[in-house]
Amino acid sequence: MSVHIGNGTIEMTSMPSIVGFGSAVGRMEGEGPLGSCFDYVSDDSGFGESSWEKAESRLQQHALEQALLRGSIAESDISFMFAGDLLNQCTGSAYSMRNNGLRFVGLYGACSTMAESLSMASVFMDNGIGKYCGALTSSHFCSAERQFRFPETYGGQRPPSAQWTATASGCAIVGAHGQPPYVRAVTVGTIIDMGIKDANNMGAAMAPAAYDTIKTHFANTGTAPESYDLILTGDLGYVGGELLRDLFLQDGIDLGERYNDCGMMIFDREKQDVHAGGSGCGCSASVLCGHILPRIQSGEAHNVLFTATGALMSPTVIQQGESIPAIAHAVHISDNGNITEG
Amino acid sequence: MSVHIGNGTIEMTSMPSIVGFGSAVGRMEGEGPLGSCFDYVSDDSGFGESSWEKAESRLQQHALEQALLRGSIAESDISFMFAGDLLNQCTGSAYSMRNNGLRFVGLYGACSTMAESLSMASVFMDNGIGKYCGALTSSHFCSAERQFRFPETYGGQRPPSAQWTATASGCAIVGAHGQPPYVRAVTVGTIIDMGIKDANNMGAAMAPAAYDTIKTHFANTGTAPESYDLILTGDLGYVGGELLRDLFLQDGIDLGERYNDCGMMIFDREKQDVHAGGSGCGCSASVLCGHILPRIQSGEAHNVLFTATGALMSPTVIQQGESIPAIAHAVHISDNGNITEG
Repeated sequence: MSVHIGNGTIEMTSMPSIVGFGSAVGRMEGEGPLGSCFDYVSDDSGFGESSWEKAESRLQQHALEQALLRGSIAESDISFMFAGDLLNQCTGSAYSMRNNGLRFVGLYGACSTMAESLSMASVFMDNGIGKYCGALTSSHFCSAERQFRFPETYGGQRPPSAQWTATASGCAIVGAHGQPPYVRAVTVGTIIDMGIKDANNMGAAMAPAAYDTIKTHFANTGTAPESYDLILTGDLGYVGGELLRDLFLQDGIDLGERYNDCGMMIFDREKQDVHAGGSGCGCSASVLCGHILPRIQSGEAHNVLFTATGALMSPTVIQQGESIPAIAHAVHISDNGNITEG
Repeated sequence: MSVHIGNGTIEMTSMPSIVGFGSAVGRMEGEGPLGSCFDYVSDDSGFGESSWEKAESRLQQHALEQALLRGSIAESDISFMFAGDLLNQCTGSAYSMRNNGLRFVGLYGACSTMAESLSMASVFMDNGIGKYCGALTSSHFCSAERQFRFPETYGGQRPPSAQWTATASGCAIVGAHGQPPYVRAVTVGTIIDMGIKDANNMGAAMAPAAYDTIKTHFANTGTAPESYDLILTGDLGYVGGELLRDLFLQDGIDLGERYNDCGMMIFDREKQDVHAGGSGCGCSASVLCGHILPRIQSGEAHNVLFTATGALMSPTVIQQGESIPAIAHAVHISDNGNITEG
């Protein structure tokens, strides 16, 4: 039974575990430094579909299939599916879930959705609600660019602070099989808006939200950076990542080597020209499910504070002169499910 | 502690109750049959703001304020806020929650959002997660029309099957004070798509989803239409409402007088020219919080099956020739919190 220890943090007591996880990505992500980690890599950005939006739904289905396969789980044993994506009306998720009979809780947290959905699935399972609960999200470079910035065919020039939306999806299925990775605690974020108005500088908009959530998580749980092997944000990229380090340095805290960001990990900064790094719900989802969870499962990593960050950026409202609200949710994932050693 | 009794239905065991609820609407909704029920009615569709989107965020803030006021609840005592709306990137909610410090779980369920958010808030409270949890949603006629169909200034003609998006918001705050209205059970829906492609016929797209969820809820809980005073959908309108009746008639079940729809209740069919009735997240939210919850609180109504329906309709994907996926979530709200009599 989950315990709300205050200010957004919920501690698990029955140690729900991630029993299945899968990732699916596009060609460019497959050519990146983590390429060999992903379960499914397609050379076809369209994933056999006639539009980018439909391609994104197909991408989600691949990630879900891989998660079911790895966990030896029947799709019908997923009691509740928490899913969302970047597209208007979250169509990536709505169309991927269409007519499959899964009980669907639609979420919108922009690029924070993987942490949001994993938090909800973990809380449900920690309280015994369902056999398995799924967390699923995706992004697609082409569907995101044309929705948030310019259509690909326009050929707009990207400034150095711009991030590259990953064509990727990740799915985690939470159950209670008593094997790592365990979800130990989550911190639900609050909306922070420090006045950034530039849709090509999402990292700067999101860094203060990541700072707020991570700091709150430390305070609520009595932990410190040293409590974790890896403090992983997704997706601040190079600009936002540096800002986050600076914000902690102002408090006298050096995140040091244990800090990394999914947007910095998914692409090669030298060989792949993505400017400030990767972004998109699918970036953190695929890095988590393709690279991080296997390392926790094998014991290579012990305690990871996965903090996905979302810029709740609306082109309509930005054009009205408003700034970008951001949010971050944190999930502590561990190879240790022993509550007394927690 | 909530019990998942299978196939999407979760029964509450500690009987969370709705301790505060508030509603806010525009002029036209204030002139409708339920006008006197709403806590806040504005003559100004812009709610003092410079855009329809910002007006919608302001509308949410009014509903939240009224809910806090009625429940004598401090905003800071809301541990988690579940909110969403119809706008792209759910900006109605993101901007209304900006910088208020509330822990925010963003949802997207289109017009099903009030039932979705109330379900999540109830599950959290039934498991003791937080002091209070909020459920909040909104819609605005002008922001919705220009996003989903045509800008108001275009003067497009609406066919008879079109529904009128209500300018309205509702907020329910769930706690554990042991007074009605109680949330007794929820059924999370699954995405149903029967092939409707007409954005001006949402009722037809949503009726099969409402049918599926209500039928599932009956089967899972061992209840029947007679178990409820009121089976309330929102917002199928006149077209979708008739379809729902027909779908049940095919099973030999006459929903009869106990069936109603928020979209049929909020506007006067004769005096207010809204064609097929009201719609929008805010329609069911404001009818629930303005009209239904007070009647359960006072004992005038005993058992209501509140079933909000959402058309997860994307103009982008509809233009690609796709049909409209729909979903419905059901919440059983009662004046009876005695588990043995349930």
